Amino acid sequence: MSLMNQLLTSISSSSSALLGQDHLFLTRPKNVVLPSKKSGLCKCIAAPSTEKTAYKTKVSRNENMGKLQAGYLFPEIARRRAAHMLKYPDAQVISLGIGDTTEPIPEVIASAMAKRSNSLATIEGYSGYGAEQGEKLLRAKVASTFYANLGIEEDDVFISDGAKSDISRLQVLFGSDVTMAVQDPSYPAYVDSGVIMGQTGRYQNNVGYAHIEYMKCTPENGFFPDLSAVSRTDVIFFCSPNNPTGSAASRDQLSQLVQFAKDNGTIIIYDSAYALYMSDDTPKSIFEIPGAKEVAIEISSFSKYAGFTGVRLGWTVIPKELQFSDGFPVAKDFNRIVCTCFNGASNIAQAGGLACLSPAGLEGMQEVIGFYKENTRIIVETFQSLGFNVYGGKNAPYVWVHFPGQSSWDVFGEILEKTHVVTTPGSGFGPGGEGFIRVSAFGHRANVLEACRRFKELYK
Amino acid sequence: MSLMNQLLTSISSSSSALLGQDHLFLTRPKNVVLPSKKSGLCKCIAAPSTEKTAYKTKVSRNENMGKLQAGYLFPEIARRRAAHMLKYPDAQVISLGIGDTTEPIPEVIASAMAKRSNSLATIEGYSGYGAEQGEKLLRAKVASTFYANLGIEEDDVFISDGAKSDISRLQVLFGSDVTMAVQDPSYPAYVDSGVIMGQTGRYQNNVGYAHIEYMKCTPENGFFPDLSAVSRTDVIFFCSPNNPTGSAASRDQLSQLVQFAKDNGTIIIYDSAYALYMSDDTPKSIFEIPGAKEVAIEISSFSKYAGFTGVRLGWTVIPKELQFSDGFPVAKDFNRIVCTCFNGASNIAQAGGLACLSPAGLEGMQEVIGFYKENTRIIVETFQSLGFNVYGGKNAPYVWVHFPGQSSWDVFGEILEKTHVVTTPGSGFGPGGEGFIRVSAFGHRANVLEACRRFKELYK
Repeated sequence: MSLMNQLLTSISSSSSALLGQDHLFLTRPKNVVLPSKKSGLCKCIAAPSTEKTAYKTKVSRNENMGKLQAGYLFPEIARRRAAHMLKYPDAQVISLGIGDTTEPIPEVIASAMAKRSNSLATIEGYSGYGAEQGEKLLRAKVASTFYANLGIEEDDVFISDGAKSDISRLQVLFGSDVTMAVQDPSYPAYVDSGVIMGQTGRYQNNVGYAHIEYMKCTPENGFFPDLSAVSRTDVIFFCSPNNPTGSAASRDQLSQLVQFAKDNGTIIIYDSAYALYMSDDTPKSIFEIPGAKEVAIEISSFSKYAGFTGVRLGWTVIPKELQFSDGFPVAKDFNRIVCTCFNGASNIAQAGGLACLSPAGLEGMQEVIGFYKENTRIIVETFQSLGFNVYGGKNAPYVWVHFPGQSSWDVFGEILEKTHVVTTPGSGFGPGGEGFIRVSAFGHRANVLEACRRFKELYK
Repeated sequence: MSLMNQLLTSISSSSSALLGQDHLFLTRPKNVVLPSKKSGLCKCIAAPSTEKTAYKTKVSRNENMGKLQAGYLFPEIARRRAAHMLKYPDAQVISLGIGDTTEPIPEVIASAMAKRSNSLATIEGYSGYGAEQGEKLLRAKVASTFYANLGIEEDDVFISDGAKSDISRLQVLFGSDVTMAVQDPSYPAYVDSGVIMGQTGRYQNNVGYAHIEYMKCTPENGFFPDLSAVSRTDVIFFCSPNNPTGSAASRDQLSQLVQFAKDNGTIIIYDSAYALYMSDDTPKSIFEIPGAKEVAIEISSFSKYAGFTGVRLGWTVIPKELQFSDGFPVAKDFNRIVCTCFNGASNIAQAGGLACLSPAGLEGMQEVIGFYKENTRIIVETFQSLGFNVYGGKNAPYVWVHFPGQSSWDVFGEILEKTHVVTTPGSGFGPGGEGFIRVSAFGHRANVLEACRRFKELYK
């Protein structure tokens, strides 16, 4: 399969819906690439159509939806990539943007899913509704594999269809009255789901949403916030190793964070989706920190370990020690949420999850992770050789490249225009990401090498 | 495999988490069956534990969660079934309760999922993140299969991991300020998700939640509400063929409903998850009614057609003609919700969905449906022969049996105790279900026949 064919296949599968959406949502002609704007995300969603149909309901639009800025970051990038490919139909576009895995799922894992699929056609192998919380065996295996000796038990683990879905379910659980803090920059789903739930005020350019505590993470503070300057909130979203900066908090820093939460009665939602990418002995789970079970939830995912971005499987740990102010266990309310708003992850995906945690599966995952880590090393070296200040990469599959004083959407646009490589503009992760570009290490080796060659050409 | 072994396998897979939960959530000794109560659902979730840990966070529990009555209906039933099996370890318990499919997935569909699983282990066949809205091909196929000539297009269709998840996402979309109406009785996820979002007031025994408009559906009104007595709400949840009553609204009734929505500027959320079970020419989609595209959303699922209750795949149709009062398209906000709070259904499940809609797959689904329809006929005949007033069954896999003047939890308990058959108490579906029992037709033929034999024994 030629690279061009691969790209066309890829655009037709991953961007198809976006192209489909054009039909519905975009007023711009398709063949024009969007100019990048000086600051902020350009508004990609059309204003209410002028060619109105005769009828409107009397239902008011949820005002929280109206607060959201433009499209969710990654579909917006996919849309710009699609527009670029329409402008340059012959270009060999390489995506180091949305963090999408590209390497095959280890065979031992894929074949376990195939086996489960086939068995569903038999009376003995068939299963209908599973437990909303996930299959008992998988919950137990997640607990023993990732949380051995940390006091996390099978019934603290909830199997999900991915971390993003559970972030949203956690927001539904907490409701509209909580206040939240996020690392700035951070994975946009934390903030956007909080906006949707009505936890925030309006957006202000270069500042962010009102009522969100943005904890600046910069090269100057080693990407760990100065907690003495952080106001108390009900919830803190904290991702380590961090997406997008690629930095991992040390044991000492995480101890500070847990102490800060304890002092404030705050709940930490700790995203450890990249934990297995760590190269040093930095904690892989927040529950390695004593006392964390009383203040923390951990969310994670098989997406970046086993290439499950399309298969959809993750988990959330809510220790029974975690309580609301009235002593009600948080896990009990979350259990009610998954029973009412979710019906469990696909049984086939769960069979895959079990295989991931078998000895051969764990080995297979380490190979996948090792592959992307080598990609990361190549990207880091490339930008370092070009004289950039480069962060991340050591403990995460993301490289955070500094372009001081420049608009990250401008840099994104220039890189795309001149090298046909898709990256992610730092400001898409929050005001604190301005002036940075995130380069993802998820890609075929040949593409990563070719992208790096083009970077060297552009910035030589 | 013996029946007992089958039951044990079944309980260990489908109720495992619930048994696991006992450890966390229940204070009652395990070996005691719960007495059924005179009215309402008994409170199955323990009050905040008395053996408190030292630490509580300062985060207030979401007060909407506190409004929810007891556990979500179906896990509660699974829990009672589990307790019953502990009490009678040798009993051959038969479940005609939670509506869980039991028959194998047609081979052509299962093998398509196996093929997709295996292909994920290859470079050519691998795919990562798919479109959040679902794969283009599947969206198009759903549109052409179920909505041919109804003006529904590919980009009106959003692929989900099941109807229950999308009900919840729709509630997140609408937010806390909308008012809602439901058929009474109805599938509990509509009401419970509205409670969680804060759309309602407190629960009142035998009345329901404040601020919900309960549209009584009784034998007297042919299970179609008297719309002249229904107050205007922003949203109406309407399920046809109905779960639990099994009755389907006629074309004339649906036209009245659409007109009612138009007059009031209301949005109908139409649940058609049982449409293919219809035996007559009653509309299979709300979009068969002229003008419905301006006032309706339709949710549906592969669960009951192809045995996908565990595989997890469904869809939601939001026509581009549907607008909020300010002219903003509802589909555009829903698109933002799926991009922010969901990452698409599993790619393997979507391969199964595509296979479902192939000629061989459609044939296979018809066989599955035909099998359960024959079960339905057997159950209807049984209760009719015993002199009960029986509703439903003709257009849906649910039989709605009248026990006038009796508490449905009492009847549920008596049937379970004396016949070891699990049914569903009508009052679990809302105050209007009191005095009824829902008998689900999902079961192996031998089990259905055996259950009916026991019913005849009990009520002879």
